[in-house]
Amino acid sequence: MPEPGDVVEIRKNGVTYRGTVLPRTEEIPEDVLVIKLKNGYNIGIKVTPDTEIRVIERGEPPKKYKAPIKVEYNPDLPTAALVATGGTIASRVDYKTGGVVAEFTAEDFLLSFPEIADLANLKLKQVSNIFSEDMTPEYWVRVAEGVAEEIKNGVDGIVITHGTDTMHYTSAFLSFALQNAPVPVVLVGAQRSSDRPSSDAAINLLNALNVAVNSDLAGTFIVMHETMDDRYCTIHPGTRARKMHTSRRDTFKTIGDIPVGRSYVLARAGKIEERWVEIWGEEFRKRGQNGFKLVAKANPNVFLLKAFPGLRKDVFERILLEHDGVIIEGTGLGHVRQELIPSIAEATESGVFIGVTPQPLFGRVHPHVYSTAVKMVQAGAVYLEDMLPETALVKLIWALGQTKDREKVKEIMLTNYAGEITKHSRPDAFW
Amino acid sequence: MPEPGDVVEIRKNGVTYRGTVLPRTEEIPEDVLVIKLKNGYNIGIKVTPDTEIRVIERGEPPKKYKAPIKVEYNPDLPTAALVATGGTIASRVDYKTGGVVAEFTAEDFLLSFPEIADLANLKLKQVSNIFSEDMTPEYWVRVAEGVAEEIKNGVDGIVITHGTDTMHYTSAFLSFALQNAPVPVVLVGAQRSSDRPSSDAAINLLNALNVAVNSDLAGTFIVMHETMDDRYCTIHPGTRARKMHTSRRDTFKTIGDIPVGRSYVLARAGKIEERWVEIWGEEFRKRGQNGFKLVAKANPNVFLLKAFPGLRKDVFERILLEHDGVIIEGTGLGHVRQELIPSIAEATESGVFIGVTPQPLFGRVHPHVYSTAVKMVQAGAVYLEDMLPETALVKLIWALGQTKDREKVKEIMLTNYAGEITKHSRPDAFW
Repeated sequence: MPEPGDVVEIRKNGVTYRGTVLPRTEEIPEDVLVIKLKNGYNIGIKVTPDTEIRVIERGEPPKKYKAPIKVEYNPDLPTAALVATGGTIASRVDYKTGGVVAEFTAEDFLLSFPEIADLANLKLKQVSNIFSEDMTPEYWVRVAEGVAEEIKNGVDGIVITHGTDTMHYTSAFLSFALQNAPVPVVLVGAQRSSDRPSSDAAINLLNALNVAVNSDLAGTFIVMHETMDDRYCTIHPGTRARKMHTSRRDTFKTIGDIPVGRSYVLARAGKIEERWVEIWGEEFRKRGQNGFKLVAKANPNVFLLKAFPGLRKDVFERILLEHDGVIIEGTGLGHVRQELIPSIAEATESGVFIGVTPQPLFGRVHPHVYSTAVKMVQAGAVYLEDMLPETALVKLIWALGQTKDREKVKEIMLTNYAGEITKHSRPDAFW
Repeated sequence: MPEPGDVVEIRKNGVTYRGTVLPRTEEIPEDVLVIKLKNGYNIGIKVTPDTEIRVIERGEPPKKYKAPIKVEYNPDLPTAALVATGGTIASRVDYKTGGVVAEFTAEDFLLSFPEIADLANLKLKQVSNIFSEDMTPEYWVRVAEGVAEEIKNGVDGIVITHGTDTMHYTSAFLSFALQNAPVPVVLVGAQRSSDRPSSDAAINLLNALNVAVNSDLAGTFIVMHETMDDRYCTIHPGTRARKMHTSRRDTFKTIGDIPVGRSYVLARAGKIEERWVEIWGEEFRKRGQNGFKLVAKANPNVFLLKAFPGLRKDVFERILLEHDGVIIEGTGLGHVRQELIPSIAEATESGVFIGVTPQPLFGRVHPHVYSTAVKMVQAGAVYLEDMLPETALVKLIWALGQTKDREKVKEIMLTNYAGEITKHSRPDAFW
């Protein structure tokens, strides 16, 4: 078997794969070889008797990476805290082995993105190093606490590096937990690891940092590529962003509202040549306001249930009854099959909070147009306007972390804290 | 209390509502008055001691409607079967009472939409009269059988009127069940009932009929408003359409591919002045081909599970184990929290089919980029390419209706029958 770092050509079932062998991790079976293809993707190949493996080039064993750059504090620049949670953007790849270097410091960032030193002083804080699909409400609380600490330390802005899978869930939590944040709290990630020529990591990170230290905003946002090209990044509101494509760099979209604005950073040879932030609305909180309060509470015993034809009544009923709260993604204006409504009544009577959100994602649920919804309201379901299902899940986890009183939870859920409920749906906020 | 048909003004808590009192149905409590507002919406108002009710105009008691038009067969026109299942489009509203007239005939349709007589001979078949949120796989089978009967009768095209909430689930089922359909099978609905000046019912219906009898297509499609204005309707593929807005008339979008095409019908004074159908791709089946086969099978014991942070391991595991199949809407490229993967292994070992689809809706799940997905595949999960979660649910219900053999189910799920799996994602099929 070839060694990590070797460039190999593997022929199996008539297909030839060429790439660099990655170091073996515990979870990978002994007979599987994982290689990094030229396009940056990793692939696992089961080695069978008819698999041909040819070593094209011997690699060097992976070395612990040591950053050659020393960071010096620049008193002329603002200071940002970079809170690292994990994800593709936080991985520096060893070019020989393709393996991810786990150690990860502000110096590493500066090596990959030297333009940073021209934008801000960077203060690194690692709160976790996990894939974002492994994020749980417990981690959200940890991130919120880490951010709050840096806000209290007086930094000019926060950048949070995060996997993209569940970034919008985390941004929703921070939008609720970091009340009246006096600075921008900007989540950012990457769809391609930085070793790919097409990586979006650098541009996303520079623009996130630009928004964090150079904008007049305050509150929680996501900053990611606006289109497939590398021109602008869009600033999305923390409660209305959604990952809408599995792989494209412009995957994040603002749903049901227009985005907050746009950021532009032109960097060349390690220097920033041009940068600006453009804000598209008036209603956003401004930097420097008082009243910051951390409410990092979570009760994760909440289920997000998508209604669908054929959903079993017994399964539906049990899911409702075994959670403290359930967010239903109702069809159309917020409906479930009428046969299921008695289970809603039973659950709300036993104290379960049931919120209804739009499965179409865009638009507003409405409890009075059709008799189905009228009956659901009579059964105790609460219609959550145009709150996105994912945001409603996060908000309910947050609300139930603060109180068990169903009426108070209802009041919290129907109060707009951070743009999660809009007064009027904008006609231009759709395809 | 006022009578049904009365126009009333109700003042409560400082708000004044004006509208027509609707007939009372069983489910509505005695102290609630349901009125139809001028904007077409119904609203229920609880009558309390401080509620002021003023009758503006006495209505006439609702009459059974009798159509004054006689339909005559026109040998120069093609013949379409109109299969009615219920929903907003199929409701004729009594203008005095606002109540929906349940009886519903081809003559009713002709009264509301006289231009129909200029497009096709209409053969009416009512298979159900339910809200689409009440649709279940059993109804899908009934609709498919009804359509198959009309196809065998030799009609030139089929129009199915359907509620919009779950229209895309039904269209997916018909796409699979009506194999090699020789004519267009077109689902159509309305976002506003026909009594509203802004109703989309007429334009949708005329265009659906136009596509059904005048296009060269074959297979299952959805035809609905293309934009907010009333110019064109879009033809969506039956397996890639999705209701994307709770209330807008252009709610349906083709996800992950370009639409099939566009239809235009210009009607004036009961006559069709101009009509055409434009097809945007080459890969669609053509009218008149042989090999039609009805495979109207369904095993509804399938769950559609949206992955989210905080999903309880015990709940996840039980949902998997108590169904014959589960479609997971995985985050990003198709992930769940790694802690949950052993439950996937346990379930697949006991014979449960587990398919993975993209929660971002756009793009393709991919089992080899991140280690999480690699492990999910090792646990037996099947990655379903760029199949939409809703379509995958329907297809799994259909596949499990045909066989219990997990390998055969996998083969069916990974075979493209009706555009549900594309070979390459089109870069222009995104925002």
